[in-house]
Amino acid sequence: MFARGALAWRRHAPRATRIIHSSGSCSSNGGELGALQPTLRRVIESGVPGADVTITGWVRSVRVQKRIAFAEVSDGSMLRGVQVTMDDPQMARALSTGCSVEITGQLADSPGREQSMEVRAATVRVVGESDPEHYPLQKKRHTLDFLREIGHIRPRSQTIGAVTRLRSCAEMGVHQVLHDNEFVRIHTPALTANDCEGGGETFSVFAGGHPGAGHPATGQPGDGFFGSNVNLTVSGQLHLEVYAAAFKRVYTFNPAFRAEPSQTGRHLSEFWMVEAECAFIDSLSTLMDVGEGLVRSTTQHLVDHTGDELGFFAHDNEARATLVRRLTDRQPYPRISYTEAIDILQRADAAAKFEFKPQWGRALQSEHERYLATSHFQGPVFVTDYPADTKPFYMRPNPDGRTVACMDLLVPGPCELMGGSLRDHDYEHLRRRVESQGFADGSLDWYLDLRRYGSTPHGGFGMGFERYLQMLTGLESVRDLIPFPRYAGRCQH
Amino acid sequence: MFARGALAWRRHAPRATRIIHSSGSCSSNGGELGALQPTLRRVIESGVPGADVTITGWVRSVRVQKRIAFAEVSDGSMLRGVQVTMDDPQMARALSTGCSVEITGQLADSPGREQSMEVRAATVRVVGESDPEHYPLQKKRHTLDFLREIGHIRPRSQTIGAVTRLRSCAEMGVHQVLHDNEFVRIHTPALTANDCEGGGETFSVFAGGHPGAGHPATGQPGDGFFGSNVNLTVSGQLHLEVYAAAFKRVYTFNPAFRAEPSQTGRHLSEFWMVEAECAFIDSLSTLMDVGEGLVRSTTQHLVDHTGDELGFFAHDNEARATLVRRLTDRQPYPRISYTEAIDILQRADAAAKFEFKPQWGRALQSEHERYLATSHFQGPVFVTDYPADTKPFYMRPNPDGRTVACMDLLVPGPCELMGGSLRDHDYEHLRRRVESQGFADGSLDWYLDLRRYGSTPHGGFGMGFERYLQMLTGLESVRDLIPFPRYAGRCQH
Repeated sequence: MFARGALAWRRHAPRATRIIHSSGSCSSNGGELGALQPTLRRVIESGVPGADVTITGWVRSVRVQKRIAFAEVSDGSMLRGVQVTMDDPQMARALSTGCSVEITGQLADSPGREQSMEVRAATVRVVGESDPEHYPLQKKRHTLDFLREIGHIRPRSQTIGAVTRLRSCAEMGVHQVLHDNEFVRIHTPALTANDCEGGGETFSVFAGGHPGAGHPATGQPGDGFFGSNVNLTVSGQLHLEVYAAAFKRVYTFNPAFRAEPSQTGRHLSEFWMVEAECAFIDSLSTLMDVGEGLVRSTTQHLVDHTGDELGFFAHDNEARATLVRRLTDRQPYPRISYTEAIDILQRADAAAKFEFKPQWGRALQSEHERYLATSHFQGPVFVTDYPADTKPFYMRPNPDGRTVACMDLLVPGPCELMGGSLRDHDYEHLRRRVESQGFADGSLDWYLDLRRYGSTPHGGFGMGFERYLQMLTGLESVRDLIPFPRYAGRCQH
Repeated sequence: MFARGALAWRRHAPRATRIIHSSGSCSSNGGELGALQPTLRRVIESGVPGADVTITGWVRSVRVQKRIAFAEVSDGSMLRGVQVTMDDPQMARALSTGCSVEITGQLADSPGREQSMEVRAATVRVVGESDPEHYPLQKKRHTLDFLREIGHIRPRSQTIGAVTRLRSCAEMGVHQVLHDNEFVRIHTPALTANDCEGGGETFSVFAGGHPGAGHPATGQPGDGFFGSNVNLTVSGQLHLEVYAAAFKRVYTFNPAFRAEPSQTGRHLSEFWMVEAECAFIDSLSTLMDVGEGLVRSTTQHLVDHTGDELGFFAHDNEARATLVRRLTDRQPYPRISYTEAIDILQRADAAAKFEFKPQWGRALQSEHERYLATSHFQGPVFVTDYPADTKPFYMRPNPDGRTVACMDLLVPGPCELMGGSLRDHDYEHLRRRVESQGFADGSLDWYLDLRRYGSTPHGGFGMGFERYLQMLTGLESVRDLIPFPRYAGRCQH
């Protein structure tokens, strides 16, 4: 007998681990060799008024008045920079937006509303200049479209800074939640000989710059570097199933690639996905429990650690703040079948006037998903058991013969956040499906083998990581939610 | 003033997070809907003799005697499977190696030496059969070469199972250590227009299966999908520097790609790297502190959580056990200059009889690195300040005009585990270097811009993740340290 907390057993007991054992006091010896400079967050959160400090960072803005000067110094560790006050305006003479600085002084309670503590400067040293004539990032509010044009400078902006911290923290949350629940992290490959899922939207990979490069061992041209056609993966699922058939609970957190020609802000050519796969589960509701738990716990992790950033994006937006609360509260996310969804949509059609009429047997369109998540449920909702004809060959058929045991998690914003299913684990049935899809050449024999040797009922899901961040930030374009966006017509840097 | 523990401040306070809030007792209701099956590790570690349990997993071996039968059942959560005893040999009738099972019974103290607890079976149910005639993985010891031929089955073997758990735990350790030290995780891109590092060993990427596919927006053939040549990244460093110029401490943990034609077990076409970059550091010794701390803390994390697996690979191998202790103890790793290394090697040459004579100005060969790490220091050693001519353009020159501020961490086994440097942060000097390297076309202007706007002395390093695991496991081929190895002539699945 196990208690309720059985799944919470922690293999990876956490402890704070110091990298630098030899470092002494690291804020009062700014620039001294042998220690990393402290982050500004650390200086501010651990400091007391009157303490001597040395801070380093980049100047976001300078304001010089008659008898005093102010600078905002940032180092990406907080939403806002640290305010530095200079009693002698001459101290600010060499400062300009974008330059890097090392400043010594004293911490002091701030009279301003935007920060709790400020630094009263004693010395100001410019580490690296920044020509104000040319520095492209100014104090004024830039559009995200403009920031994307200066992709190597935009990390210093407040919005991209907040996105970056959320992104980093969210990945940590995902790992923590899944390790806490005994999932084994599998590094599924980016390069794959498997091309059964891409629908033609895969990227091909060649060594030596062209498809005809010779085989490295035989020297024969045309064989290619690997001796077979190789694509960039569109999903780690099939590979993950291999490891689920040995480790019971596995996940991957990897880039995936689609040569999607869309010019909208909804698609990236390179994006990140969390994918999980569990053996020995016979029920879609168990799978939804896992998916729901992952979203809830990861979001709670963000609330606990990046509240400022979540607040920044929910500023003046009650709907977004409500959504974050809804994602993390204990109330189960609603679960409806595709058939019920069609029913809701048909009843709503008179008022909503959908471009595509909702009809049983057809795929849900974005406008339908948006209506369900944003208008009807106003929060996350699982839609299950879609018609088999609208879904891939590997999904497990339901007893009704018409639908498959699958689920999509719809949310306000990106609409489809997560998609998953139980997998067909019956060898003969799956073999016929594979052959009818045109893969009778044996290229999926390895995948079928998983059903020949110790098959188990199993299932899994994938969650688009940029879509997850899009939901929390409300940013329109996924291009602003990844450090270096790649999409049709664009691969900068 | 900050205390010594300043760098250990934890942004991501850990807590055990349950995914499945609704699950009740999950081991006594085996197969019941709504809860994940517990792992065998959980069953064994949390169980008490006499407890009713249900276990699921895959049969590794069956042994039928006259009055009793035994089966070893594994689910990848432990080095060894759980021993199941069946008082009636008939219960084992349907069992064969590789089949999946659900077994109910009672936990009992085991009389065997290899496990503390076993399961006395009450019922045995085969979930998925496994034809013993064809199942390729037998109880007998297979070679790693053979296991690689059955890449979709090998995760069920004891060795690959141990590697996989080490790998998963090591990644978690890396994230934990770097987050504990306030590093921001940056997802540097796999697709890049930057091709200045590959030395011709880069993979090219095309949409639509061939280089001539039209531009998706203009429709013009020859432009390609992105409108520019795109490669798979060989390193995230340059992109990471962009974010280090905004976040001070950043890291990436990503796949990298090299079309290395080598047929040996030392190189993968797709491999994983941990790369870290720090702004505002002026000293190589600080950088080595960070690199050394990462190796020490991650290895300690593995000792704490995967001691069985480390022990498995160090079995009958005192050198490996000593190495793990050496990596984790508090003694600093020795640090010598390249010049001192050449001196040591020249003195050793009479006895060691190197194929390549050690000579100042030439790159260190593998045999030299091996001698230093394995014979001379018998453990990790940093070698610093190599001749500039042997190193890439972005490394920071030393005042002597002949060497650069770089470091390699050499270890027994893979030899070079980590490589890093301070980066040239002087705009004019770096611009001349870039141009002399043939990149005067403006393609690196963005990289140079980092030195124009708020440049800081900075540096970073990369650590090969498979090499790190190779050091700990002693496995000869890196092909056995990644779930799906890709190398010249081979891209299975």
